[in-house]
Amino acid sequence: MDNGALTGLATDVVVFTIRAQRLCVLLVRRTREPFAEHWALPGGTVPADEGLDACARRLLREKTGLHGVYLEQLYSFGSPGRDPRARVVSVSYFAVVPPGCLLSVTDHSSRLAWTAVDALPVMAFDHGEIVSMAHRRLASKLEYSTIALQFMGERFTLSELQSVYETILGEQLDKRNFRKRVRNLPCLEETGEWFRAGNHRPARLFRVTRPSRVDIIK
Amino acid sequence: MDNGALTGLATDVVVFTIRAQRLCVLLVRRTREPFAEHWALPGGTVPADEGLDACARRLLREKTGLHGVYLEQLYSFGSPGRDPRARVVSVSYFAVVPPGCLLSVTDHSSRLAWTAVDALPVMAFDHGEIVSMAHRRLASKLEYSTIALQFMGERFTLSELQSVYETILGEQLDKRNFRKRVRNLPCLEETGEWFRAGNHRPARLFRVTRPSRVDIIK
Repeated sequence: MDNGALTGLATDVVVFTIRAQRLCVLLVRRTREPFAEHWALPGGTVPADEGLDACARRLLREKTGLHGVYLEQLYSFGSPGRDPRARVVSVSYFAVVPPGCLLSVTDHSSRLAWTAVDALPVMAFDHGEIVSMAHRRLASKLEYSTIALQFMGERFTLSELQSVYETILGEQLDKRNFRKRVRNLPCLEETGEWFRAGNHRPARLFRVTRPSRVDIIK
Repeated sequence: MDNGALTGLATDVVVFTIRAQRLCVLLVRRTREPFAEHWALPGGTVPADEGLDACARRLLREKTGLHGVYLEQLYSFGSPGRDPRARVVSVSYFAVVPPGCLLSVTDHSSRLAWTAVDALPVMAFDHGEIVSMAHRRLASKLEYSTIALQFMGERFTLSELQSVYETILGEQLDKRNFRKRVRNLPCLEETGEWFRAGNHRPARLFRVTRPSRVDIIK
């Protein structure tokens, strides 16, 4: 803490969503060196007078238009060689948005892209590693928190919620065990409405009661 | 990430142990301004060519003698005003050590002290806030990981393990439910030996099979 070594400071955000039953992250194409034209996480330099959370939120909004999303500090990446210019520490965050956010972002042709985490391009800096850690954190949080609810739209069925778990974990889950587990989740309540599609049995519709918190499940 | 603002970089470590059935942290008395003579977490400046984890470990060893302990990155603290000299980001860690580590450190008379988290002195910088967050993280990890095993000595009874949970959570737990829960923990096995004290019923002794990992419990 004494005579602090001078270091560059950045925040970067891994924004997760699920599109077409794949877990995706939001990438931004860099315009400047180093790694010009490479895909990177939305983020950038932290000004001297701005807090870390505030900076992550502001840059996310400026670079992608997203705001008001669930955001959580993930990890700080500070290997001496991670930026070719200087020692830069990235305080990374992860965010989760429901389907339908930034719907118009569809492919890699523009400056912004949703990309499946299992098909990432070569990324700038160590951003691929940051995505991997965020994916691991997300998967383990499914086990002990209500974070999966952040992926859901306004109303959803338990089958849709199960599909989110399966997509993130990359494995099929037993329907009965899954339902037993999530029916006791805090922040989840029945709407009293039913979803009906074709010849399928109607399914109860649920909603999230407190969308801005992620509870630890005891 | 471009034209990074220059910032001081530090690592600080919250070392937890349990002494006399109280959750304690290891503090170091500062010798220099700012906050000279105040208690602080063991830590300091990260050199430009050293990784964050390596630096946290090295400084912990240099300042307290502790090494080979369970260490995990906790959170980065970077409020612009947290250091009166300059913008300094602290990448904080927490460590857990079994009872008996640094036994000779007993009170506040020396440069190093084990202090109960519910009786912290006025701390340098925002280190009191760092301890609070570490305590919250530790308590929530009890619910979904095997971190409590890091507090245990070589062999221990389930009553001793339950006492660790109760000390950290600050509440009494039901003995039967607790045993049901921990008997299925990975990394926990019976030694085949028994602990006998006075007229009490003998208690099975357990040990940790993989002390360096903290498993997420599914």
